[in-house]
Amino acid sequence: MTKQTEWRQDFVALSRDELLVKVASQMSNKRFQHVLRVEEKALEIAGKFPMDLEKVSIAALTHDYAKERPDEEMIARIKKSQVDQTILSFGNAIWHGVMGAEIVQEELGITDAEILQAIRVHTTGDVVMTLLDKIIFVADYVEEGRDFPGLEDARQLALTNLDEAVRYEIKQTLLFLASKNQKIYPKTIDVYNTWVANYKEDLC
Amino acid sequence: MTKQTEWRQDFVALSRDELLVKVASQMSNKRFQHVLRVEEKALEIAGKFPMDLEKVSIAALTHDYAKERPDEEMIARIKKSQVDQTILSFGNAIWHGVMGAEIVQEELGITDAEILQAIRVHTTGDVVMTLLDKIIFVADYVEEGRDFPGLEDARQLALTNLDEAVRYEIKQTLLFLASKNQKIYPKTIDVYNTWVANYKEDLC
Repeated sequence: MTKQTEWRQDFVALSRDELLVKVASQMSNKRFQHVLRVEEKALEIAGKFPMDLEKVSIAALTHDYAKERPDEEMIARIKKSQVDQTILSFGNAIWHGVMGAEIVQEELGITDAEILQAIRVHTTGDVVMTLLDKIIFVADYVEEGRDFPGLEDARQLALTNLDEAVRYEIKQTLLFLASKNQKIYPKTIDVYNTWVANYKEDLC
Repeated sequence: MTKQTEWRQDFVALSRDELLVKVASQMSNKRFQHVLRVEEKALEIAGKFPMDLEKVSIAALTHDYAKERPDEEMIARIKKSQVDQTILSFGNAIWHGVMGAEIVQEELGITDAEILQAIRVHTTGDVVMTLLDKIIFVADYVEEGRDFPGLEDARQLALTNLDEAVRYEIKQTLLFLASKNQKIYPKTIDVYNTWVANYKEDLC
């Protein structure tokens, strides 16, 4: 899938090159390379659907825009926002998605609701997910720089059955967090209960 | 640990034999044998603490009193009760503890708050647990009829470090449920986040 060098629509008032510079300015080079690989993978997955590929690119390029913000800024933003304040006891692994949408809107002027929602839910998934949400969620998990047990299964599902790829990622992420004694965001369980536990086939 | 044949206190207005008959009348013989093994194990664990052993026996003997009630009865009770109604989308694996305390109070006349609480939380554990809660929770998991990978570790912890045994059970139960695509009660995550994720040592 070829990346577009010129946008044909106005989801963002920046050229692609200007957007790349802005995104790169927010993060380490290592993370920026991850972001580029997520875009690559998201476009590969999206190629199988009647999708607006500009939305896919922009959501992929901006999904981690807020990942390296200082905790103090994120905490202040959460306190001023309408989001459930219990999120404060979780770290930036959760905050950067939920609050990232707001930051991307504010600083990059992106207002498209689908793009912002895909950023918002890219870490936890959601009980109901749009096609764009699913593509960014899965691309982030299986991009070519990743390496973990079961990755090849996840990568194959990403290209053959996107909903199963979402289910696989939700389940494996929960198992990973619990195996490492890591804190689990309560919404993760609502998402698991909807996508994995209520699904009848034994998938993974 | 010898079981008492006569109660010396008045937690229940039934002799031990009468209580056994009442409990047995509520369940299959297989489950009744489990209940007796939970009492045995609970008394073994409790022997290490300055505990009221009658409370331990009565809580152990009544913890599954409501486990074989018809779903219709449990649903009707939940609807009439003050408990969070989202529990309705979970099954009797969750209901029999939460509502069991109410049923035991109503039908066996047990009003001791500690015994009722131990029944209430015996399946999920709780963010804050009394010593009796912990003993029943762990005894139910490691009683001599159980058989699962890791059981010997859990059994040893039960007798050497009860808090670690609680942590072990919470974590392994979450991993088990997720590995089997089973629905997870949201409180389970609050309990996990408190007992396992906030605990600093890497335990299990």
